[in-house]
Amino acid sequence: MRGLLLVAHGSRREASNEEVRRIAAQLRERSGDGFVAVEAGFLELAEPLIPDGIECLIRQGASEVIVLPYFLSAGRHVAQDIPAEVAPKQAQHPDIKIRIAPYLGSADGIVELLLGLSE
Amino acid sequence: MRGLLLVAHGSRREASNEEVRRIAAQLRERSGDGFVAVEAGFLELAEPLIPDGIECLIRQGASEVIVLPYFLSAGRHVAQDIPAEVAPKQAQHPDIKIRIAPYLGSADGIVELLLGLSE
Repeated sequence: MRGLLLVAHGSRREASNEEVRRIAAQLRERSGDGFVAVEAGFLELAEPLIPDGIECLIRQGASEVIVLPYFLSAGRHVAQDIPAEVAPKQAQHPDIKIRIAPYLGSADGIVELLLGLSE
Repeated sequence: MRGLLLVAHGSRREASNEEVRRIAAQLRERSGDGFVAVEAGFLELAEPLIPDGIECLIRQGASEVIVLPYFLSAGRHVAQDIPAEVAPKQAQHPDIKIRIAPYLGSADGIVELLLGLSE
């Protein structure tokens, strides 16, 4: 029973947060039975924050949580801040497997996506 | 003769700028004969800045320049700052067609890319 948390930085511009929530909704739709639940979560400035997002997935029945960083570069947020938010939740729920997936910018397919946009 | 400028914000963390340059290099490799030149460009904090990146493409023979925003959300940078950097170059080169492509976060395929990362 896998749950997916799409994690973005969070913005003072609410429309940007809504964009992330919309992507999470599309992930929910297109994943079929792949996930018991999909949520958006934020490092700061928007809700739910990462710990609350993880809790929400567990409440919905997730026994495994995948945290997916919606970031283009492997900066401090990806390398340090997200793991620092995840670690206490893992300690709190030793029976739940929580893992952080590769960040979006590391996906091989991003080059093809960009080529498509440049048409 | 199309030239492609992949535009990111630019970071104080040089490794992030290098990630963008690496994506631009991959675009160059995989685009085949699609572009006469591909460069990375930045809004601030890294070089080349957008105007210099556009000049560089024109010098390499581009008669059409596509500016591709490497951004996930349609915030101020995409909606205002990038167009504001492009407009003076268009005025300076009326014979060159310079257009701004949709930003990365608007690509339909991004959901499939995220699903792939969550495997």
